[in-house]
Amino acid sequence: MSAINTHKSAPPTAIVLLSGGLDSTTVLAIALERGFEVVALSFLYGQNHSHEIEQAIVIAKQANVVDHCIINIDLSQFGQSALTTDVEVPKHEHVSEIGSDIPVTYVPARNTIFLSYALALAEVRQAHDIFIGVNALDYSGYPDCRPEFINAFGKLANLATKISDGDAGLADGKTKIHAPLIDMTKAEIIKAGRRLNVDYKMTTSCYDPVGQLPCGHCDACLLRLQGFAINNLTDPIEYA
Amino acid sequence: MSAINTHKSAPPTAIVLLSGGLDSTTVLAIALERGFEVVALSFLYGQNHSHEIEQAIVIAKQANVVDHCIINIDLSQFGQSALTTDVEVPKHEHVSEIGSDIPVTYVPARNTIFLSYALALAEVRQAHDIFIGVNALDYSGYPDCRPEFINAFGKLANLATKISDGDAGLADGKTKIHAPLIDMTKAEIIKAGRRLNVDYKMTTSCYDPVGQLPCGHCDACLLRLQGFAINNLTDPIEYA
Repeated sequence: MSAINTHKSAPPTAIVLLSGGLDSTTVLAIALERGFEVVALSFLYGQNHSHEIEQAIVIAKQANVVDHCIINIDLSQFGQSALTTDVEVPKHEHVSEIGSDIPVTYVPARNTIFLSYALALAEVRQAHDIFIGVNALDYSGYPDCRPEFINAFGKLANLATKISDGDAGLADGKTKIHAPLIDMTKAEIIKAGRRLNVDYKMTTSCYDPVGQLPCGHCDACLLRLQGFAINNLTDPIEYA
Repeated sequence: MSAINTHKSAPPTAIVLLSGGLDSTTVLAIALERGFEVVALSFLYGQNHSHEIEQAIVIAKQANVVDHCIINIDLSQFGQSALTTDVEVPKHEHVSEIGSDIPVTYVPARNTIFLSYALALAEVRQAHDIFIGVNALDYSGYPDCRPEFINAFGKLANLATKISDGDAGLADGKTKIHAPLIDMTKAEIIKAGRRLNVDYKMTTSCYDPVGQLPCGHCDACLLRLQGFAINNLTDPIEYA
């Protein structure tokens, strides 16, 4: 289960990308279970709903992370995503209606940028492990949520930085991108998180909240609700 | 020489990373010579000497780029580089004294972050070509200036974005990272730039200017001065 290098002294540090959503909050619990000290990393990236950052702060605090870095990057100036512009977020009544194309909620190169910052932070903190909550099954439309992408970034990471081998950054496979949810369904993620006592009442997933409340009809809400239903559970958050 | 897909209508767009230094200004001229319409991309990354951005703005304007994006990212909060903190920049009298270790001027994961933004911008502008002025010979100490790094980023780029194949971002090799200086010496770069009428009087290279004037003794200044000397040219900029 564990992928860490054990040290006699302090536990190793991992960088965990934390949006405050269901997936990344589960990943945070997984990293802690595997024995890492966690430095959480969140982004203000011009998203319309920065409420999720407030929740990420509370979640990180409750999980006793050693540090929580919040980086302000403005991807909205690049345009072209319903998450950062006023393009309408698609709404449906049922999961089966979700399209197979790349959704308009896709943000250009978002995970590449997020992982690049995580890599810089990992280098500074002498961390060889980066955790990201990407998931290829339920979001197959996002190119940067696929295993091929994660593998390619892992290769890049081991060429890009100084700590990779303590000297010249040669590829030695020491830096690892962990994507523990990559081949899990939303139902399996929720099951794993419940086993680790994740409090999903704290997590937000909605692309288009009504005030502070999730809409219940965007892709993220529908997949989340289905995940709880498959586990015979009621989603603990309130919907609009 | 050219690596572009020719179109009957508008010329293809390329993203050019432009710092305002000798290398990236030469790369800008190379991209224009190859027939691209250029969108320049510069960064304020908490560097001590943002004077170079002012020069980048003038250089981009003179080169008639179609657009110039300046992104404010603050890498200084990650620490650990003489370019963004108050660590002393090493000074020497001669190029032969420059060390072979990774210099303290190395900024963690900088080129990974810069290329990630370039990729996002490329996707939004429907550009398949990204130009970066990295150079493995004179700066062999930087892990993210090596051909292996550039190749790995090229592979990642073709997995990371939507436009890679116009649909699902599958690897098709359409997105290309151009690093035309990668195996050139500083002298060869200057020779190439002179052929393209690059005005090196506009470019700054110094890691640690004295006021607005380059110091003449940091690694960047020494390598630049040597490059001009080998070409039997006088560096047109004034030194402190």
